[in-house]
Amino acid sequence: MANDSQILGISNAIVDILAHVDPEFIDAIGAVPGAMNLIDEERARAIYDRMGPATEMSGGSVANTVAGFATLGGSAAYIGHVRDDQLGEIFNHDMRSLGVDIRLSPAADGKETARSYILITPDGQRTMNTYLGSCTELGVAHVNEDTMGSPKVVLLEGYVWDLAEGPALADEAIEIARSNGSAVALSLSDSYCVERHRQAFTDVVNGGVDIVVADEDEINALLGTDSFEETLPIILGMQNLFVTTRSEKGSVIVHRGEHIEQAASPVEQVVDSTGAGDAYCAGFLYGWANDWPLAECARLGTYVATNVIQQVGARIEPGVLTNFPSHTSDHRIPVQGG
Amino acid sequence: MANDSQILGISNAIVDILAHVDPEFIDAIGAVPGAMNLIDEERARAIYDRMGPATEMSGGSVANTVAGFATLGGSAAYIGHVRDDQLGEIFNHDMRSLGVDIRLSPAADGKETARSYILITPDGQRTMNTYLGSCTELGVAHVNEDTMGSPKVVLLEGYVWDLAEGPALADEAIEIARSNGSAVALSLSDSYCVERHRQAFTDVVNGGVDIVVADEDEINALLGTDSFEETLPIILGMQNLFVTTRSEKGSVIVHRGEHIEQAASPVEQVVDSTGAGDAYCAGFLYGWANDWPLAECARLGTYVATNVIQQVGARIEPGVLTNFPSHTSDHRIPVQGG
Repeated sequence: MANDSQILGISNAIVDILAHVDPEFIDAIGAVPGAMNLIDEERARAIYDRMGPATEMSGGSVANTVAGFATLGGSAAYIGHVRDDQLGEIFNHDMRSLGVDIRLSPAADGKETARSYILITPDGQRTMNTYLGSCTELGVAHVNEDTMGSPKVVLLEGYVWDLAEGPALADEAIEIARSNGSAVALSLSDSYCVERHRQAFTDVVNGGVDIVVADEDEINALLGTDSFEETLPIILGMQNLFVTTRSEKGSVIVHRGEHIEQAASPVEQVVDSTGAGDAYCAGFLYGWANDWPLAECARLGTYVATNVIQQVGARIEPGVLTNFPSHTSDHRIPVQGG
Repeated sequence: MANDSQILGISNAIVDILAHVDPEFIDAIGAVPGAMNLIDEERARAIYDRMGPATEMSGGSVANTVAGFATLGGSAAYIGHVRDDQLGEIFNHDMRSLGVDIRLSPAADGKETARSYILITPDGQRTMNTYLGSCTELGVAHVNEDTMGSPKVVLLEGYVWDLAEGPALADEAIEIARSNGSAVALSLSDSYCVERHRQAFTDVVNGGVDIVVADEDEINALLGTDSFEETLPIILGMQNLFVTTRSEKGSVIVHRGEHIEQAASPVEQVVDSTGAGDAYCAGFLYGWANDWPLAECARLGTYVATNVIQQVGARIEPGVLTNFPSHTSDHRIPVQGG
């Protein structure tokens, strides 16, 4: 059996291919601006052929969170499906270099490693066009006692439900987690994803998921409300721990009738908002896995998210905690990146 | 025959893999700090295994210049050797997306596309560790009337001489260029490269090369001098056009007894000095290919280099010319990147 880690992420393993475009480009390809658009291989090729010069870096929502968790010094493991191609090697390298324990070997055949063509318009908005490729071959057989171990928390992303075997895989992972005493966290991914799988998400949130991580739009979409003001009383009456982020309005942690409000930190300039939610989730769960009080978890989530929006890219940088005033004197700042 | 372009670059086609490291990392792997270190496949794997998370982007010295030339609106073509793998696709995509005419098809077999593991220390210094891979299969057979056409200028890089067939290929390219009336430019790459091939470079500079592009260290290494003050009178007496860059001391254009000094532009902060020389070369040759006066070529080179050191990455961004006060009213600012 795999060595136990504090966190195990199960998600789509994706390499981001980022380029700057004019707003007309988004129009011309008919993508939903600011959303994660699923595309097939043919469309991936067509978009790439029209795109300008790009930069490549490892991505994926929960993969970013797992990488961030490891960067903070937590022990992390990961289940995601890549091909044994160069992009798969890049993805796994970037994870392993942070100490993340990669639980699946790259596939020797099948579709190429997934990529997301991320188109950045001058207003800073990111439109994702994701070709799932090898991710679509992630299946129920990949989650079992051996690959999962008994982490403190298993983190799933909503995007997993977009895969053919995703819903069954999620059920199996949740069952194994529960039988092993692992908590289950679900990141709702994006509001369009919630619309696609609202009933399935509602079912697992009502039975199996302990921690729900979502931004305002996603949690509203799940509950069918029009505003967070409508949402709050509903989730106050539920049994899960809700970690909700509201951009410049900060974040709200809700747990069985109680809630904690954490203000956002003022920033001089948002360089790139990509990965803010993933980074918040990494910080929050790092605190949670180390038994910090919820208010401290929220404070760390905010600190890490604030850091990530002031740099290019979705993954947090080593040394991010250097100036974080820890609530415990025994919290060691990890030294990494060399 | 290929359509004629203003510039044709012949060089090593490389994808950069960039990561931040501590100075101890450079020590530990025994690389020459700040230099381009050639590595074999085994060493490439060992370095990558020890490196932290990375970002990938197309690179290569003369490839950067050719990309920059195209970004400025010039017509450009390129001869470089990649494999038909994902990194090769990335390299060719990034070139083609700028309108560069790629003259060789990716190889169906052989070594993987070249990559350079670029290690960035906190002082901003870049240490390159280059696995030449597929580049080593670039040979004499790849340069001929069909692949070269009759560009206004053929640009070679010194690194080509590191390839087994590089010297013969360079001779052939120079001969074809001369018989077609194309000018030949040689970028000296780096001072260690000049040390490796000093006699060969001396031979081609004395017979065949019209334009020599070099920084201070490189031209001093070629001539065996200790300072630019020693170098200047020597190159004033030579027949070539010398384009020499001196970092914050600006640049000096030398042509048959005359020289033009161009001051560097003051910059608030150097974000990343990678590619400054390549960008200068792109700007200078763009002006030269459009029959601008040499002083204007130097001014554009400086402008483009100043731009590239204030951003991350070695390739200039679309719209770089937006604020360049052109010396001719008919110079159109190209609109790209969408």
